[in-house]
Amino acid sequence: MEKKISQEIINIFKFKFKFKFLHLHEPDLDKSSVQYLKNCIKTNSVSTIGSFVKKFEEKISDLTGAKYVITTNSGTSALHISCLLADVGKNDEVLVPSFTFVATANAVKYCNGIPHFVDIEDRHFGIDFDKLRIYLKKIAVVKKNFCINKNTGRRIKAIIPVHVFGHPVEIKKLLSLSKDFKLFIIEDAADALGSFYNNKHVGTFGNLGILSFNGNKPITCGAGGAIITNNKVLAKKASHLVATAKLANSNNFIFDKVGYNYRMPNINAALGYSQIIKIRKILKKKRKLFLFYKKIFAKLLFLKILDEPNKSRSNFWLQTLVLNKEYKNLSNKIIKNLNLNKIYVRPGWELMVNLKHFSKYPRMDSLTAKNTYKRIINIPSSSFLINKIK
Amino acid sequence: MEKKISQEIINIFKFKFKFKFLHLHEPDLDKSSVQYLKNCIKTNSVSTIGSFVKKFEEKISDLTGAKYVITTNSGTSALHISCLLADVGKNDEVLVPSFTFVATANAVKYCNGIPHFVDIEDRHFGIDFDKLRIYLKKIAVVKKNFCINKNTGRRIKAIIPVHVFGHPVEIKKLLSLSKDFKLFIIEDAADALGSFYNNKHVGTFGNLGILSFNGNKPITCGAGGAIITNNKVLAKKASHLVATAKLANSNNFIFDKVGYNYRMPNINAALGYSQIIKIRKILKKKRKLFLFYKKIFAKLLFLKILDEPNKSRSNFWLQTLVLNKEYKNLSNKIIKNLNLNKIYVRPGWELMVNLKHFSKYPRMDSLTAKNTYKRIINIPSSSFLINKIK
Repeated sequence: MEKKISQEIINIFKFKFKFKFLHLHEPDLDKSSVQYLKNCIKTNSVSTIGSFVKKFEEKISDLTGAKYVITTNSGTSALHISCLLADVGKNDEVLVPSFTFVATANAVKYCNGIPHFVDIEDRHFGIDFDKLRIYLKKIAVVKKNFCINKNTGRRIKAIIPVHVFGHPVEIKKLLSLSKDFKLFIIEDAADALGSFYNNKHVGTFGNLGILSFNGNKPITCGAGGAIITNNKVLAKKASHLVATAKLANSNNFIFDKVGYNYRMPNINAALGYSQIIKIRKILKKKRKLFLFYKKIFAKLLFLKILDEPNKSRSNFWLQTLVLNKEYKNLSNKIIKNLNLNKIYVRPGWELMVNLKHFSKYPRMDSLTAKNTYKRIINIPSSSFLINKIK
Repeated sequence: MEKKISQEIINIFKFKFKFKFLHLHEPDLDKSSVQYLKNCIKTNSVSTIGSFVKKFEEKISDLTGAKYVITTNSGTSALHISCLLADVGKNDEVLVPSFTFVATANAVKYCNGIPHFVDIEDRHFGIDFDKLRIYLKKIAVVKKNFCINKNTGRRIKAIIPVHVFGHPVEIKKLLSLSKDFKLFIIEDAADALGSFYNNKHVGTFGNLGILSFNGNKPITCGAGGAIITNNKVLAKKASHLVATAKLANSNNFIFDKVGYNYRMPNINAALGYSQIIKIRKILKKKRKLFLFYKKIFAKLLFLKILDEPNKSRSNFWLQTLVLNKEYKNLSNKIIKNLNLNKIYVRPGWELMVNLKHFSKYPRMDSLTAKNTYKRIINIPSSSFLINKIK
């Protein structure tokens, strides 16, 4: 069966696209990228001094509506700083979805906190807030504005919802749950630059949001990330922490806490800037590609393509095929077959609850995640693929 | 007095150099930098995939003689990973000089370790190994190959000597002390790319060494660093940890420990590569600048210029004036005066033992450091200044 499925998918790509190879996701760079980089060299401003960091941050602010944007050298760094700002420390638990890139859980560990893994829903792979509410009612109690895990006695301080592949989680339920259980919200919007819920950009609903500009993202800085927030105090703290916690007005090297070397260099910001100025075009192309895929994959009965959630406008970062339940054990073989045909696709992330080094951490059952993640295949999603359609 | 001293220094710069402003340290970029960056854009390889990371690492290996080079996104990241590889964890002490950039001590903290501050000598500002030996004999004991701090009961696991401003520490004494007290050596060569001791590159004497390619360094990647070592096992572990600890041969996203997102992107490596291929020219120019400074500053009686240590060949990263002892309280005013005249200079780093948030950590007396650091003024040191001499 996996041969038949593989072949039908391969045929779609072969008949519909002109290509020698199709990568999973490549950035949309052009002459302006070269131009801005050249400018960095000419002005000898490739590092922390230079105009592009501010310009890039302003464009992110324009797009997301976030009042404050603090760029970082990776999305992981942005998550780490966000967890510090949520005051996550030793013996603090943080709710993290079982289905996510590992950085979400690692960031909690960097602060010596404890990831507490929760299940996802099977429509868009975000946290299942209904299920989580029932679970928290059972295992947690709110005392003096703190959420306490009755089983461990530890505080549950924060929740990190992930907008998987660019699809917004159910924001309304997130906000209501977090309010009831006094949870600090860090929205992991690493996948979701250009994704909106009710016309508001994701990452701006919680206390903090983070973005990623990694190489495979809709726009890239080579590596990079950002913390976005409307909270002035948190923004100020974030700026301080990413810049080694050096006292700003001091001529000398005085630092007032353990800080980090997480700033985005000017050269990486210049690269990001060259793309964010055309982000609306990029998003349009990605949506167009989705609509094309939707049409052509509708013919295949053994899978569906992931559409955007209600009330949402996804960036369609990674286009996603979801195999029917009965084929969940075939995905690895199908992926191998596609890759052999130079159609580079990838599986869903391994579940956090399946990683050995996280085995001792608390978790609710991950039944839906377990039934879902092996059915996921991310397919070529570069915005410029739309120009390669036959 | 500070006016007289300031004016004499200002006069030297004004009469000897053509300039509108003199920055502390700028990189030596050129057309090849633009060319290599352009190549990254053209090949759509700006992130973790691309040829420049490997090429850059090979050139670092050629220069340093280190068998293994693992580039990172900052020198701080390289220090962090090195501390992890030294197995620094909760309740482990690490010997750190009181006079260094804060990252050296922070890296220990990132691992939940405890920096234990030690004094420096006043000739080149490296750790005073003679004084340290006397101190360790008093407070520490070696039991079963472990060095134990008798006062705290904790293990002293490692030592991080810093090659300050590019001047090698007394390597022979470092090695003998570390052998006697069973200390893992992480050489902080963040300042010292191109510095040699007995014709061997610094960073290659200890178990691990780290380099920095920050914006103000002899060569820059915008931001960046590297771990260098001759130990295959440590190198393999480092490569794994900087790349999120993802299992290499897995098609899926399987991680076997808490890892980090510390890799150097291709675009930053391309920038570094464009400079390291001319590193010998850069070092020559920096040495020539030193010799020029040495000659002209010899006329001033109230200071000396820092020369290179015995048996060493310094990269002269930051050229350094050292005020005579009696003027140590004038340096801030002198620095201010120079900066007002667009000669950008900077003071020595604040001592680690003077930072409030480190106040609870163990330390030996820092008498020499305290008597020395306020006398330090780093002066303009860009390699291309040699071309601005009148």
